[in-house]
Amino acid sequence: MPPAAETGTRRRATWETRRQAIIDTSAAVFARGGYHATGIAELCTANELGKGALYHYIGSKEGLLAAIHDRVMDEVMAGADRVAAAGGTPSEQLTRLGEELLDVIHRYPDHVWVFLHEFPALTGERADQFRARRRAYERRVELVLQDGIDAGELRPVDPKLTAKAWLGMHNYTYLWLRSEGPLSARDVAKPFAEIFMLGISRRP
Amino acid sequence: MPPAAETGTRRRATWETRRQAIIDTSAAVFARGGYHATGIAELCTANELGKGALYHYIGSKEGLLAAIHDRVMDEVMAGADRVAAAGGTPSEQLTRLGEELLDVIHRYPDHVWVFLHEFPALTGERADQFRARRRAYERRVELVLQDGIDAGELRPVDPKLTAKAWLGMHNYTYLWLRSEGPLSARDVAKPFAEIFMLGISRRP
Repeated sequence: MPPAAETGTRRRATWETRRQAIIDTSAAVFARGGYHATGIAELCTANELGKGALYHYIGSKEGLLAAIHDRVMDEVMAGADRVAAAGGTPSEQLTRLGEELLDVIHRYPDHVWVFLHEFPALTGERADQFRARRRAYERRVELVLQDGIDAGELRPVDPKLTAKAWLGMHNYTYLWLRSEGPLSARDVAKPFAEIFMLGISRRP
Repeated sequence: MPPAAETGTRRRATWETRRQAIIDTSAAVFARGGYHATGIAELCTANELGKGALYHYIGSKEGLLAAIHDRVMDEVMAGADRVAAAGGTPSEQLTRLGEELLDVIHRYPDHVWVFLHEFPALTGERADQFRARRRAYERRVELVLQDGIDAGELRPVDPKLTAKAWLGMHNYTYLWLRSEGPLSARDVAKPFAEIFMLGISRRP
């Protein structure tokens, strides 16, 4: 028999694993039927849980929507952290940011669909947090662009507008990039990076 | 008193004008509250019409959603027709396609929001028509790219993937480009075209 502390840790790990599974299943349900049109009963059926058990894991339907968003943003920010830790030139960093972002969209099409479509349903603190996290990521992209401009590697583009162009090009793949589809995230990331980097690099 | 035929034409023009106004008002209502969450009663209030009169103009709630989509796609396709009629090099045409597309997004943010978010609610023939019209526009972009490649003006990029990159960069502006905002459609179209055209042009 494991010591009490370890049992607690294991129980916690099990709870968290179960919670993540509920988030993933519910993302698929919302992606098919829409957030507003999907009731708690439908979520219970999909997750094979009673209402009480479901609330125990997710708190509320809006809490579930926020959790779907966080699941994606955790991965997106972890990718951005890996890119920053690896260093390299701003051009290399922007290329790798694109690979990381498309990898998340490729792996979580339902989650991305739900949070890009249903985020107006978030209210109060959850809406604030959603905006802050998305802004933090956009800021990372702007800073890499600014570094590239300062280093003379990139043309003197507007970092804010250019970050939005870059985000649009990559984020919009959520409409057609699928994990079961013929293209891998890298198949798309490479030509996208070529277009974008040639588009903003300083000419020799 | 005008002759009978002219009266009929006028009546038709009035009906159509009123219908377009209903479509525009309803797009704003859907953009605020979501398609599923918005009831017919709410649409009646916003349009200052009884239920019978509203149905007389729009047929059904789903018909209204299709009409919102058509209103945007009519403008987008008209823009693409103007570009094709004006001619010019493929690079010039792609640049002008971007200006025309951003102009529509800038003028119809609510419509674009609604149709990009709520198109899964379209069923049957309406869903087919929606997909066919979007595909037709995407095909226009692909053909301009292919012309540019064939003419040796553009690098030998994949036209399909490159069209998707271009569409993403432009379409995604619906999240932040607003008619009441500080940036005009042209303020955005110009730097976007610079990035994209440098990104796909053949090097000298």
